[in-house]
Amino acid sequence: MALVVQKYGGTSVGSIERIKNVAQRVVATKNLGNQVVVVLSAMSGETDRLIGLANEINPEHSRREHDVLVASGEQVSISLLAMAIESLGEKAISFLGSQVSIKTDSDHSRARIKAIDNERITEALTSDHIVVVAGFQGVDADGNITTLGRGGSDTSAVAVAAVLEADVCEIYTDVDGVYTTDPNICSKARKLDKISYDEMLELASLGAKVLQNRSVEFAQKYGIPIHVRSSFSDLEGTIVCKEDESMEKAVVSGVAHNKNEAKVTIRGIPDHPGIAASIFSLIADEGIVVDMIIQNTSAEGLTDLTFTVPKPDYDHALNSLEKINKEIEARDINGDKDIAKVSIVGIGMRTHANVAGRMFAALARENINIMMISTSEIKVSCVIVEKYTELAVRVLHHEFGLANKDTKDESSR
Amino acid sequence: MALVVQKYGGTSVGSIERIKNVAQRVVATKNLGNQVVVVLSAMSGETDRLIGLANEINPEHSRREHDVLVASGEQVSISLLAMAIESLGEKAISFLGSQVSIKTDSDHSRARIKAIDNERITEALTSDHIVVVAGFQGVDADGNITTLGRGGSDTSAVAVAAVLEADVCEIYTDVDGVYTTDPNICSKARKLDKISYDEMLELASLGAKVLQNRSVEFAQKYGIPIHVRSSFSDLEGTIVCKEDESMEKAVVSGVAHNKNEAKVTIRGIPDHPGIAASIFSLIADEGIVVDMIIQNTSAEGLTDLTFTVPKPDYDHALNSLEKINKEIEARDINGDKDIAKVSIVGIGMRTHANVAGRMFAALARENINIMMISTSEIKVSCVIVEKYTELAVRVLHHEFGLANKDTKDESSR
Repeated sequence: MALVVQKYGGTSVGSIERIKNVAQRVVATKNLGNQVVVVLSAMSGETDRLIGLANEINPEHSRREHDVLVASGEQVSISLLAMAIESLGEKAISFLGSQVSIKTDSDHSRARIKAIDNERITEALTSDHIVVVAGFQGVDADGNITTLGRGGSDTSAVAVAAVLEADVCEIYTDVDGVYTTDPNICSKARKLDKISYDEMLELASLGAKVLQNRSVEFAQKYGIPIHVRSSFSDLEGTIVCKEDESMEKAVVSGVAHNKNEAKVTIRGIPDHPGIAASIFSLIADEGIVVDMIIQNTSAEGLTDLTFTVPKPDYDHALNSLEKINKEIEARDINGDKDIAKVSIVGIGMRTHANVAGRMFAALARENINIMMISTSEIKVSCVIVEKYTELAVRVLHHEFGLANKDTKDESSR
Repeated sequence: MALVVQKYGGTSVGSIERIKNVAQRVVATKNLGNQVVVVLSAMSGETDRLIGLANEINPEHSRREHDVLVASGEQVSISLLAMAIESLGEKAISFLGSQVSIKTDSDHSRARIKAIDNERITEALTSDHIVVVAGFQGVDADGNITTLGRGGSDTSAVAVAAVLEADVCEIYTDVDGVYTTDPNICSKARKLDKISYDEMLELASLGAKVLQNRSVEFAQKYGIPIHVRSSFSDLEGTIVCKEDESMEKAVVSGVAHNKNEAKVTIRGIPDHPGIAASIFSLIADEGIVVDMIIQNTSAEGLTDLTFTVPKPDYDHALNSLEKINKEIEARDINGDKDIAKVSIVGIGMRTHANVAGRMFAALARENINIMMISTSEIKVSCVIVEKYTELAVRVLHHEFGLANKDTKDESSR
C-alpha cells in the first residue's frame, strides 16, 4: 500500500463539476489500494474575489487580516471536496492548516512552513479516511492564520508529503507536465518525462510557473518525488526527482523566459569598499528582491552597477535610489523596463564545455543583443530587449535540440 | 470605561458599504471611551450561497463538513470589518471561534457553547484593539469546527459578553427593537422599551425571530442586559433585562405567531402507562422536536394524543408513526399542516386572573376555532386554522391594548 499525496490547483476545483471530477480521481486512487491525502487550493477566482473586497474596504489593510480573509477560500474548497468524496461512498475528512498544525513563521502573506504535525492525518488515514488538507495556509506560534504566498499550495503538498513520508506527491495542474519551454511560444516544446530537482529549481525561479520554488526545495530536501500532471487527463506528466543516469545525456533540459523583471543601472559611483553593500541594503530594506547583479569597473576610480528587480518594484527602486544619491554620489541612475530574461537550464552543462558560447552565438546569429549575463553551474541567463523574447526562446530551443527527443544531446547539432 | 459587546447580523454587513457603516459605528462607540468587542455573522446571502454549493455537490453531506464550509462565511466578514476599522485609524484584530476557544459540544450544525477563553480577547482589548469575533462558530474538544445553528451569532455575542462581564450586549439587526407583535401583520404594533428575559424567551420560542432563544437564556443566567436595536438608525431599541417594576403594569407584553408547525393526531390508542413515552421516544430518536402536546381521555380505555412538530418534519413524523403502529395499535393516525399558533405573552399574567379567558373570548367573537391550547405561567398559546393567523394577531393585539402605551394595563378595555 502506497501513501499518495495529491495536490489540485484552483483551476482543477474551479466549479462544482470539476470538484466532482477530482473526487472521482481521488477515490480511484484509493481504490487502487493507496492511502490518499489531498491538498487543495481555493476555487479559481475566489482568492482574487476576496482580495478585491479587501481592496475595496481598505487598500492599506493589514497583512494579518489579509491572511484571515483569503484563507477562507481553501476552507470552502476542502469541505466541498470532502462532501463530494462522501457522495461516492468513501469516508472523507477535511483539515484546515491550523487543524493539522501547519506551523509557519509570522511573515503574513509569505510565511514559511516550519513544522507539520502528522498525528491527526495519520490517525484519519488509519481509520480509512481520505484526508483533505487546506493548502496555502498555516498558523504561527500565536495561532494567527498565515498564508504562504501565491503557489503556496504546492509547498503545502510537498511538506505534507515529507512529514508523512509519502511515496509520491502528485501535483495536478492545468498543464500536463514540465515542458522544454513554454508551448505557447514554441510549438515544438516537448513534455519532459523526468527532470532533476536542481533543474526544476532553476526553471521555476526563471519564470516557468509550474511549481513554487520552495516546494521543490522541500521535495529535494526530503527526497519526495513530485509528479506534475494534468487534472484533465490521465496522461503521465513529468517526474521531478533526484538526478539519475538517463538525465545526464541532456546538455540542456529547458529554455525559460521571464518578462517580469526590469533593470536598474547606476553609473559612475566611487569604487570603494562598502558602496554595493549600502545600495543593496537599501533595496532590501524596501522589501525589493534583486535578481541579477553585474558590476563593471570603469575609468577614474568609478564603477557601474546594473541589477534587475521585479517590474512592479521598478519605480519604487528608482525613487529609493534617488533619495540616497547624495550619499552614493552616482553620476547617473536610470533603468529599463522593456527587458526580458531568457535562460537555458541543464545539469549536462556541468560536463559539457562551451554551452554558454553556443547560446551567445545562437542569439548573435539573430542579431539579438545581450545586455546582461549571469550563470550558475546548470544555468545561463541573458537579459535582452523584451520584444525579442519569443524569437530567442525558439532559437535556443532549436539550438539545443530540445524538440527531438532522440537527438537531445550535444551530438545532435 | 464600559465594555460593550456589539453583534451585527448578516444584513448589517451585507455589502462593502454596510461593513464600512458598521466600522464607523464601532469606532464611534470606542471614541465614547468604551472598550468594544464586535461579534459578526456572515454577510447576508453568503451562508445560503455556501449551503447551495454543498447541496449541489452532495445533498447528504456530513454535518462536520457542513460546518467547515459555512464557518468560512464569518471568516470573510470579520477580516473585512477589521480592515474597515483599520482604515478609520483604529487598531483591530479578528478572531475565529477556534482562536478564542469558543468550545462547544460536537453536535455539528446545532452545537452548544460550553466555555470561552477570555484571555486572548482581554489581552487585545488591553492593547487598545477593537476585537472582532466570528459569531455562529466554535470548536469541539477535538478541534473540529462546529456551528451553533441559525441565529447562533446572538448566542456567541451574549456568551462573549458573559465571559468578559460586559456592561451591555448590543444586538444590531434589521429591525429597531422588539415589538408587541409583527409590524408586518399589525400596523399598530409598538416597539417595547423594555422586556423581561422570561417574556423574551417565550416570544423567541413562539416564533418572534428577534433573538435566538439560547442567547436569552445565556443573558439571563449571567445577568447581561441585551439591547436589541437597528444598525440602520441611531434610535434606542429594546432592552431585554431582569424584571423591574415598570414592567409589571403590563398584563400582556406581546402577541406572537408561528406558522411553522404542523399537528399530528393519534386516535384510539390503549390508555395504559408507557404508551406516550414510547411514542415520544420514537419521535425524539428521529431528531424531531415536539412542541405542544395534548392528551384527552376517551371512552372504552382508549385515549387520543395530539402534538405539534416543525412543518419540515411533518411527513417524517407521520411515516415514523405508521411504522410502529403495530406496537401502539392506534385506530387512526393523521394530521394537519394548515395550522398556526398564536400566543400572548406577559409576566403580568402571574398576577392577573382570566387572561386566558379573555383571549378565548376575543377569538370566539371572530369565529376563530381553537384546536389546541397550551399555557405556561406567562403565556397562553392557541392552535388555529392557518388562514386566520393575521386576523387573530390583530384581534389579540387590540384586546390587550398593546397599541396604546398609556393604556397598556388591563384597565384599558
